[in-house]
Amino acid sequence: MELKAIPASVAQNWPSRYRAQFFNCLSGFKPLHLLGTKSKENQNNLAVFSQVFHIGANPPYLGVLFRPDTVERHSLKNIRETGFFTLNHVPVSHVEQAHHTAAKFADNESEFEKCGFTPIMNTGFWAPFVEESPLRLGLSLHEIIEIKANNTILVVGKIEEIHFLESAVKKDGYLDLNTLNVACCTGMDAYHATEKISRFNYAETDKKPEPLAHNLF
Amino acid sequence: MELKAIPASVAQNWPSRYRAQFFNCLSGFKPLHLLGTKSKENQNNLAVFSQVFHIGANPPYLGVLFRPDTVERHSLKNIRETGFFTLNHVPVSHVEQAHHTAAKFADNESEFEKCGFTPIMNTGFWAPFVEESPLRLGLSLHEIIEIKANNTILVVGKIEEIHFLESAVKKDGYLDLNTLNVACCTGMDAYHATEKISRFNYAETDKKPEPLAHNLF
Repeated sequence: MELKAIPASVAQNWPSRYRAQFFNCLSGFKPLHLLGTKSKENQNNLAVFSQVFHIGANPPYLGVLFRPDTVERHSLKNIRETGFFTLNHVPVSHVEQAHHTAAKFADNESEFEKCGFTPIMNTGFWAPFVEESPLRLGLSLHEIIEIKANNTILVVGKIEEIHFLESAVKKDGYLDLNTLNVACCTGMDAYHATEKISRFNYAETDKKPEPLAHNLF
Repeated sequence: MELKAIPASVAQNWPSRYRAQFFNCLSGFKPLHLLGTKSKENQNNLAVFSQVFHIGANPPYLGVLFRPDTVERHSLKNIRETGFFTLNHVPVSHVEQAHHTAAKFADNESEFEKCGFTPIMNTGFWAPFVEESPLRLGLSLHEIIEIKANNTILVVGKIEEIHFLESAVKKDGYLDLNTLNVACCTGMDAYHATEKISRFNYAETDKKPEPLAHNLF
């Protein structure tokens, strides 16, 4: 396969939307979440997020990256003010509705209602979960870090609560996201389904990795 | 779908590997990269990484999350000492070999040779690229941030060079990773292929998202 090699600096001359599309694709596949918050004034907010990543298992931390100059600002404001948020994986069947939450709805409009999602409230957790999601996490704000490079905000959340399908958990703790049929995404607007290839055993120097047994995947 | 809801605190009583598997899966799908470095002493190093994410398009930044207590330490040391690294997307055909790079090879062994990858050197870029990868990025170290929650290290890299398949770039700048047939992953050891669902137009409040034309996806 013949690849073209370019210095990234040539992109400075590209149209800004072309450049944004291209560079947003380079990091690769991303998870697809709906981030739920509730303001101090009890207004629910829901926004699609792909910049979510694992930070640690014990204690359990996730990171969420925010660009403060976008529609995500309501989510970040609510997290700062209330200390809580939810992350809800998006099923393949709901990617269009999830994408719709990125629109700039008015302050008094709820993305839940406008985009066709059902908030789960009154669970004792401040922020709303998404009924349509097969894997939901409730998190508390732990740490806010500013990335100096471009003023991006990294929110570190501690997982407090997990809603999951018990039958999707294998006997070694692996949670099978293929069974849940949740989507992933790339770039700014592209959505994908996934198909399992394999799990492998713990990597050792002197032999090739071996696929794990079928009942673990 | 009936979900089980648990407080995350119950996981403190789980066996540590079970807990690690479970929580590593919760953030969702991750990209799959081979991170290439070269030490000051000219020793090539290659390690599989999934904790890679987009930080910004202009200037182009990526983040890579490191746990300093693992085999990843060679990569981090080399980045700190030389200032350069590469990220190379892994084709579906090479996930077993990529997984193998996680083994604790001796200091004088090269993961390239042991795991069946070909380094591209003498390109004028300090760190080696991976020949078998259909999308390769050369980065310089821009910023190192410690996440206090668990001493995880976030390396912010600036994209300096890009090796890509020109025919996989659509006319609006979107880079089609499905065509490149690169893998994604979940948890600690699970690998997946992807299948496109759709791209959607810019989200607007008063209408549902519309799929983009076929030639853009």
